Amino acid sequence: MDHDVFRPIPLRILTTGQYIPSRRVHSREFDQRWGKPTGWTLRHVGIEYRHFAGADEPASMMAAHAAQDALQRAGLRADQVDVVISVGGVMEQAIPCTAALVHRRLGLAGSAIPAFDINATCLGFLVALDLIASTLMTRRFRRALLVAGEVASAGLNWDDTDTAALFGDGGAAVIVEAAEQDSASCLLASHMETFSEGTEFCQVRAGGTRMRLAADADAFAAASHFEMSGRSTYRLAAQKLPGFMQTLLQRAGVTVDQVPLLVPHQASAKALDHLQRALQLPPSSLVRILQTHGNQMAASIPLALHHAIQAGNLRRGQLFAMVGSGAGLSFAGAVLRY
Amino acid sequence: MDHDVFRPIPLRILTTGQYIPSRRVHSREFDQRWGKPTGWTLRHVGIEYRHFAGADEPASMMAAHAAQDALQRAGLRADQVDVVISVGGVMEQAIPCTAALVHRRLGLAGSAIPAFDINATCLGFLVALDLIASTLMTRRFRRALLVAGEVASAGLNWDDTDTAALFGDGGAAVIVEAAEQDSASCLLASHMETFSEGTEFCQVRAGGTRMRLAADADAFAAASHFEMSGRSTYRLAAQKLPGFMQTLLQRAGVTVDQVPLLVPHQASAKALDHLQRALQLPPSSLVRILQTHGNQMAASIPLALHHAIQAGNLRRGQLFAMVGSGAGLSFAGAVLRY
Repeated sequence: MDHDVFRPIPLRILTTGQYIPSRRVHSREFDQRWGKPTGWTLRHVGIEYRHFAGADEPASMMAAHAAQDALQRAGLRADQVDVVISVGGVMEQAIPCTAALVHRRLGLAGSAIPAFDINATCLGFLVALDLIASTLMTRRFRRALLVAGEVASAGLNWDDTDTAALFGDGGAAVIVEAAEQDSASCLLASHMETFSEGTEFCQVRAGGTRMRLAADADAFAAASHFEMSGRSTYRLAAQKLPGFMQTLLQRAGVTVDQVPLLVPHQASAKALDHLQRALQLPPSSLVRILQTHGNQMAASIPLALHHAIQAGNLRRGQLFAMVGSGAGLSFAGAVLRY
Repeated sequence: MDHDVFRPIPLRILTTGQYIPSRRVHSREFDQRWGKPTGWTLRHVGIEYRHFAGADEPASMMAAHAAQDALQRAGLRADQVDVVISVGGVMEQAIPCTAALVHRRLGLAGSAIPAFDINATCLGFLVALDLIASTLMTRRFRRALLVAGEVASAGLNWDDTDTAALFGDGGAAVIVEAAEQDSASCLLASHMETFSEGTEFCQVRAGGTRMRLAADADAFAAASHFEMSGRSTYRLAAQKLPGFMQTLLQRAGVTVDQVPLLVPHQASAKALDHLQRALQLPPSSLVRILQTHGNQMAASIPLALHHAIQAGNLRRGQLFAMVGSGAGLSFAGAVLRY
């Protein structure tokens, strides 16, 4: 990758959609659980409340509801997309891929429309957007439905005061299509960097083929929870962010001052504060939904985008960027004209 | 998708690689386990032996070894690829994505080379090839390392005589790069169809956010095994195969007679026999490694490709196709000039 400025790809984010689980959990519930004074959890994680999915709200259900929301805003039927891509960080079940489950919930069972998953933990939406942009250019696809349903609460250790209150569940959907050549809407650049020295900084060790329930049930249960080394993650992310952002902006051919809106992954209050300081952003240019959503993993960036659009903070023709860091440790970002 | 013939994408499969686990398991071991006469399992599944991974052979290790094999054949270092994509059907652990684990094993920890997963159960390699082809056209990437490490044995029910002897473990890797415009090597067409009426025909219900160990350990254990409704799968696949193949070949602008080699997913002996009959293929044109490998899930197609190349059955400039059906139920295929 030795070319500096990318050729923009005509691409239009048509509509977005969301699904918020019915159960709202205030941070004072964590205060009570942990025997802390009222307000401790809110101050500790910067989150007032988040929503947790019930047994009747699995990942594919939330993703499908968010998709219906986005389709309705676009005035489209589900069978008017060319491909369904689930970008969630954790699957609903090991087999088949989550996109097939969403496909079925959308009434597409007999449609033959292809469905598959792209997984980059919290960054799946940006990776999928990047790949789909190229397929719009080659006319492999013309309109894609990207969905994320995340049930972070399924893997939290309720006794870990650093992570249990940090996450929220939810569903998000984005419809992306090829823009006309004379449209202003485009993807200026995408960029991703992986620093796998951080594979163990954020992890769930079970949930795959390596840990076996039959081999050691206690070890398996312990490995089924999200584990985070907050300090190591923060240190590595802070070290790598400047270089990553420089490359992303350089490839887009813009400076940070020219991008009036940044839609970040809502990783944590500390991560958002750091991003704002490091890029010297005015508070109004950074989309923040963390306080009322928590970190919703791969649904986080598309949900923050949805909120920015619904709040009228993103208008057609405007430049904006989406960025995030996720387990791996990876960074991903995109600069677009909406 | 209303365009009939695709514009070929200059693309070259540079090299392939494999990793075979050290433990070889003959079908007579299953005969003994199940109290069947010697030869029963071989006749039942058409598999003489398969290899199962040990505790020291997790998915990312097998994928990384296969990648090193492919890199060595190409005379490349790992840091000379632009992206690492894991295309395996089941993850090594829930977080982070498997590609990050492979990235680390390849010594790429500090390289910043991006890593992510694409999951379409057994068809991930074909989906990734399809997406990467478009990114080669837009010059987003120039050379991609696609890897699959599959530990099917982690999820088998050893008492199920229909599925326990059907699968094998292993690793595969394929290096794909942009071909020169004057090169014969190209992707003529890709195609995928999903029929999600079949989501429950092949499944592992646990291994994601829906089933919870803490809620019901016995139910969780039961749901951790692969479940297959062989008859339903076969019926749906047989019904949809002709239409799928017709579209794939039409998009490539070729007839089945013009494609001298077909590299299929090694789903089962019955599936391979059906494919051969349905397409009226001479036996020599269908790559079969099932008898000595079993169904290696997403590693199956790239491993069959590897064997075809190593056996001298695929030469530069020759047309060939790769096709498969997988859980979902999905079909994917690609027609290439090698």
